[in-house]
Amino acid sequence: MADFNATFQKTLDILLEEKKYSSAKDILSTMAPEDVASVLQELDEKPAALLFRLLPKKIAAEAFVEMESDFQEKLIKGFSDKELTAILDEMYVNDAADIVEEMPANVVNRILSNVNAETRTAINQILQYPENSAGSIMTTEYVSLRLGTTVGQAINQIRRKGSDKKSFYTCYVTQNRKLLGRLSVKDLLLAKDDDLLIDDLMKTNVISVDTHTDQEEVVQIFSKYNFMALPVVDKEQNMVGIISFDDAIDVMEDETTEDIEIMAGMTPSDKTYLRTSAFSLFKHRVGWLLFLMVSATFTGMIITNFESALSQLVVLTAFIPMLMDTGGNSGSQSSVTIIRSLSLGELGFSDIGIIIWKEIRTAVLCGIALSAVCFAKVMLVDRLLLGNTDVSAMVALVVCLTMTVTVLVAKVVGCTLPLFAKKLGFDPAVMASPLITTIADTLSLLVYFGIAKFFLHL
Amino acid sequence: MADFNATFQKTLDILLEEKKYSSAKDILSTMAPEDVASVLQELDEKPAALLFRLLPKKIAAEAFVEMESDFQEKLIKGFSDKELTAILDEMYVNDAADIVEEMPANVVNRILSNVNAETRTAINQILQYPENSAGSIMTTEYVSLRLGTTVGQAINQIRRKGSDKKSFYTCYVTQNRKLLGRLSVKDLLLAKDDDLLIDDLMKTNVISVDTHTDQEEVVQIFSKYNFMALPVVDKEQNMVGIISFDDAIDVMEDETTEDIEIMAGMTPSDKTYLRTSAFSLFKHRVGWLLFLMVSATFTGMIITNFESALSQLVVLTAFIPMLMDTGGNSGSQSSVTIIRSLSLGELGFSDIGIIIWKEIRTAVLCGIALSAVCFAKVMLVDRLLLGNTDVSAMVALVVCLTMTVTVLVAKVVGCTLPLFAKKLGFDPAVMASPLITTIADTLSLLVYFGIAKFFLHL
Repeated sequence: MADFNATFQKTLDILLEEKKYSSAKDILSTMAPEDVASVLQELDEKPAALLFRLLPKKIAAEAFVEMESDFQEKLIKGFSDKELTAILDEMYVNDAADIVEEMPANVVNRILSNVNAETRTAINQILQYPENSAGSIMTTEYVSLRLGTTVGQAINQIRRKGSDKKSFYTCYVTQNRKLLGRLSVKDLLLAKDDDLLIDDLMKTNVISVDTHTDQEEVVQIFSKYNFMALPVVDKEQNMVGIISFDDAIDVMEDETTEDIEIMAGMTPSDKTYLRTSAFSLFKHRVGWLLFLMVSATFTGMIITNFESALSQLVVLTAFIPMLMDTGGNSGSQSSVTIIRSLSLGELGFSDIGIIIWKEIRTAVLCGIALSAVCFAKVMLVDRLLLGNTDVSAMVALVVCLTMTVTVLVAKVVGCTLPLFAKKLGFDPAVMASPLITTIADTLSLLVYFGIAKFFLHL
Repeated sequence: MADFNATFQKTLDILLEEKKYSSAKDILSTMAPEDVASVLQELDEKPAALLFRLLPKKIAAEAFVEMESDFQEKLIKGFSDKELTAILDEMYVNDAADIVEEMPANVVNRILSNVNAETRTAINQILQYPENSAGSIMTTEYVSLRLGTTVGQAINQIRRKGSDKKSFYTCYVTQNRKLLGRLSVKDLLLAKDDDLLIDDLMKTNVISVDTHTDQEEVVQIFSKYNFMALPVVDKEQNMVGIISFDDAIDVMEDETTEDIEIMAGMTPSDKTYLRTSAFSLFKHRVGWLLFLMVSATFTGMIITNFESALSQLVVLTAFIPMLMDTGGNSGSQSSVTIIRSLSLGELGFSDIGIIIWKEIRTAVLCGIALSAVCFAKVMLVDRLLLGNTDVSAMVALVVCLTMTVTVLVAKVVGCTLPLFAKKLGFDPAVMASPLITTIADTLSLLVYFGIAKFFLHL
């Protein structure tokens, strides 16, 4: 497949070099709009704009939607009002709304004054919903049928009016804007008789979301059910739009990337890595680094408090990194597992009892295994092999006991923090590795020095 | 929506208590198959099996596919051969293959002897492809049309034979099994004239994957293009099946969960958290914990080597956790960003130069910001506020210099390791936080003690 596109690319390059734009257009017209967008964005502005204008309006509009916003802006600036209207007419309302959101005010004004009143209303409606809500990602172009329509009539209606519908294959049956049922083009085409009423054919138990439903929940519904589209209703239960599976897939990826970025201690960015500047990366990363660095004041204070004891038995210092890391790793395993399960909608706060009990048992098993290996390692490698005579069996015991307690505490803290974050309305992903590591560090040092003081009489 | 299902659940509970199975069946029949599966799995085996048999075969089959494999096995054991055949007949081949994969040998034999020869061949074909390949997730039920068919004929053909096709809405035009073109039911229904030839209507530049293409690449294609189905071809370029968007969504989630689990230092599991036993969690987690714990031997050795110096200036110990954590966090930010971009197909090994240069600039910015804050914090908090007179300006400088160097090294290591892992055919996710943390620990200690020795003459 890759080679296939590479061949096209080569041919295109030659045609463009020879300024054979019309032939280049013919090639582009056979390609997927996403690829047309990639190809055009690689070109200089002038030939790109020229080629773009030659494309059939439908393909042009579909490709336009897939472009980066800075490139879209450049193209729009070169459009006549007529060209702009033609492109916007071919676009789904949610895509137009996405573009409006990214453009500077003057471009927004031009866009809104070059669409018809109905589209303008729809765009404004979508833009008014909160970010990350179902309303903000829905589109208003769906097929709606009336009760009492026959299969034959419905098929005819779709063939006449369906061309600009995003959810072409799923039809919604409504009465006074209330959602009564759902049926698919497949149901219609496979119906035994064209005179059957859709009333008898439609599914009435329709799953829908509210305009203000969080897009994370929308994604969960798409991943649970094999829907092509999901209807969106407003507070009065009137149907106002649909979310299509392909838009849901995009949201799914964005949400996951956001989760992963937050879990790694970054504020989420919405550009791809190669399109993000070093300065922007810095801004997204430095906040957490600073916060976590300053938080490490606690670990420093604990060590300082224990300084005199440490100077008596410096070998204890050698085990600090291992204990801290094992605590941090144990805690992040638990927190990340819970965060991911929360994102997938597999867990809720009400499961907290089951979760803690499961983590305790897991922690005990991990603690025993780690301690056993750790004891053997300390006695064989550190004492015998590396000949560090300060490492007594008692020191090894202190280290292993610390490890067991730390793993237990880290796992319990790791699994509960995301649950409480979710409960309190924060993003659970914040409670991932970096934060858990800092907490586990503090806890493991407290446990370590407590146990050491007690057993080694420091 | 949630309340809606809760009401249903309550009604169902009452009906089942009164053993009104027929009415319970009527309610279940209006629900989505995924919900039917959830409801049945909550019941005891006997009423569940009873209800399942009462369901219309199509709904029963769709619900069956959504169940956990242990529950499927129980149900199958209660089926007569005739019932088993009826359920299997309603299933898509890829779903049947998924079930076969999970069942013990005797159940597999029963399944394979109760399907027709064609289905058996298709199941065996799918099972023979490597795990995680396009072939292993495809299904063989697609609509294929011949060249020379008119739009009217094509619509009729779909209406007659389309009922058991998974990709009902996307038709593939083939000749001698070679894939020539693709067109959608939408294209057919919206065609101006029923006598048009599909040859003129179809898209010929069709994106397809090979049976051995990795499923990660399949997911990338679905997230780039708004496809409902993706055709799969064999080595001879013969079309052998399709992958449907809903199966792609499932793979997308599984792949991401797997990535996240590996990034948090766990071996991936395929059950949900609540269905995973503590012992199984332990097995998935202890391996990495042990490996990372033993790896910490290096940090221990470095500290031991530096023991005499540390005992001269114990205050240096207090900064170890902060330096190690900042290094670890900086490194994981970079590695996780690169791992995610690799998963999304946004980056390749060839970008390594751009990436390293971007990370170096980001690291320098982060290093400067962190050092400035760190210097202020050490002098104001540790020295003035906490009155630790061992903390001289020189010590603060050593700490800050170490921080800058560590951040730089950690970010460069963090961004390159996943790229090399990918290049060498390993999973880049392995190079995430836990491993980077251990590496960053070792590096930061080496840098710290090196700089301390030089500037503080220890």
